[in-house]
Amino acid sequence: MPHVHAKLRIMVFKHSFQIRWVDTDGAGVVHYSNYFRYFEACEEEFYRSLGLNFKTIYERYQIALPRVEAHCNYKSSCKFGDVIEISLSVGEIDEKTITYNFQVFLKEENKLAAEGYLKCIAVNEKWKAAPLPSEFVKVIRENRV
Amino acid sequence: MPHVHAKLRIMVFKHSFQIRWVDTDGAGVVHYSNYFRYFEACEEEFYRSLGLNFKTIYERYQIALPRVEAHCNYKSSCKFGDVIEISLSVGEIDEKTITYNFQVFLKEENKLAAEGYLKCIAVNEKWKAAPLPSEFVKVIRENRV
Amino acid sequence: MPHVHAKLRIMVFKHSFQIRWVDTDGAGVVHYSNYFRYFEACEEEFYRSLGLNFKTIYERYQIALPRVEAHCNYKSSCKFGDVIEISLSVGEIDEKTITYNFQVFLKEENKLAAEGYLKCIAVNEKWKAAPLPSEFVKVIRENRV
Amino acid sequence: MPHVHAKLRIMVFKHSFQIRWVDTDGAGVVHYSNYFRYFEACEEEFYRSLGLNFKTIYERYQIALPRVEAHCNYKSSCKFGDVIEISLSVGEIDEKTITYNFQVFLKEENKLAAEGYLKCIAVNEKWKAAPLPSEFVKVIRENRV
Repeated sequence: MPHVHAKLRIMVFKHSFQIRWVDTDGAGVVHYSNYFRYFEACEEEFYRSLGLNFKTIYERYQIALPRVEAHCNYKSSCKFGDVIEISLSVGEIDEKTITYNFQVFLKEENKLAAEGYLKCIAVNEKWKAAPLPSEFVKVIRENRV
Repeated sequence: MPHVHAKLRIMVFKHSFQIRWVDTDGAGVVHYSNYFRYFEACEEEFYRSLGLNFKTIYERYQIALPRVEAHCNYKSSCKFGDVIEISLSVGEIDEKTITYNFQVFLKEENKLAAEGYLKCIAVNEKWKAAPLPSEFVKVIRENRV
Repeated sequence: MPHVHAKLRIMVFKHSFQIRWVDTDGAGVVHYSNYFRYFEACEEEFYRSLGLNFKTIYERYQIALPRVEAHCNYKSSCKFGDVIEISLSVGEIDEKTITYNFQVFLKEENKLAAEGYLKCIAVNEKWKAAPLPSEFVKVIRENRV
Repeated sequence: MPHVHAKLRIMVFKHSFQIRWVDTDGAGVVHYSNYFRYFEACEEEFYRSLGLNFKTIYERYQIALPRVEAHCNYKSSCKFGDVIEISLSVGEIDEKTITYNFQVFLKEENKLAAEGYLKCIAVNEKWKAAPLPSEFVKVIRENRV
């Protein structure tokens, strides 16, 4: 009798925008540090899609989510005027940390420009590591299945 | 009997640094918005030369100094690797505001790259306009004579 | 016989977005230099609405538009999560320069946060001042009536 | 007869500066993306200590060094006014890539704030991967013994 494998449908949240002039550098491409701003912009839009933001997360769940690790692999340059689509998928969640994975696509060329992740740790109002509130995890996970 | 006019010798505080790659844009020159970061960097170094910074100004004098006006005229482009010297001189001080004037020089070419000003207003801990503390003004002015 | 004054209906281009976390500073408000990034973002969206951008302007009209003057008056602080609406209106156009006026509104409070302008000069491929191409001016003006 | 292993003394290049207000965010700490700007600032100062910069590297060796990977682990927050010292050590060098390792120290507390690396790939004037010129590698390595 065949197993019915539960399919894990990873929800991928997508956020698109056009590359701004100020984000380019003297080589005519997006400065590598800006991808980390883009990751966070996508994370903000993801929370926004859940009716949340850093401020309301702090108010409702008494946690902030500083990053403990940030990583990016660069594949293709993005240039001024390029439309990019950033996708966020929720990665590992353990007791105190949550990881978001990101991919940056050049939309017209349908080409991967960069991919990376942000690992965040929950901290309380004293900026001490704290368990991720189950309510918060539930909200995040519901967007995951 | 002739008056002896006190000569007002304007002290000019100077701060130099080299243009970073990240500050350039796709035209190979410093993005215009960055000059406002440079003005503030020079202001910070000016305070530092007085043993102050935004935090200690707030602690000692119970004021913050948000900007009410910012202006810049651009004369020559700055490029990656250029050494620039920013000069700050204290401009008008009235009851609640203080203006700092800035000039940005390209050091090697001895050429004016930009000039402008920041007009700041003193606000108290409730972020309401407040008189500039005379003690603070004195410290600033002593660098002016 | 009364003159019929042609009414000059100034077109105002509008661009809205939400304040990003990275744009705030230690005072919890948008750093003053970022408004100049916002002005340019609105200018980029304005061009985009005309099917243009800095690159295509350069390709079609052989001009770049570096800023010769930038100004901002700050009225109210913008905070993380605030939705702002920036309006651009075309100001003075003379032989070689074009000025864009900007207003930044806090949308929920319907409050003016800041207003200012960018004065741009047309330069040719040698980065020398050049007349604004009449074709370009026409495209810009048509959005003005 | 025992081998006498040449000891590899890793040269560490150091660069210090004070945290600017503009680099802090609404949590009163340096925004995580800025550490990648700091890494590059230290890399620029390292090149400068060798009489080089991105431009002269391109002119002399016909290569640019775009990043293919960037990573940072965050240990302690940096705040406005903190003096930090960034150390750079040259990591792995293979045919086409060079890795720089960075550590960010809070100088007063003598505490590690962050550490990470940048992996760069040599590209030629057509932005295609190219071997790292041996002359360049030699200059870099001489600072390594």
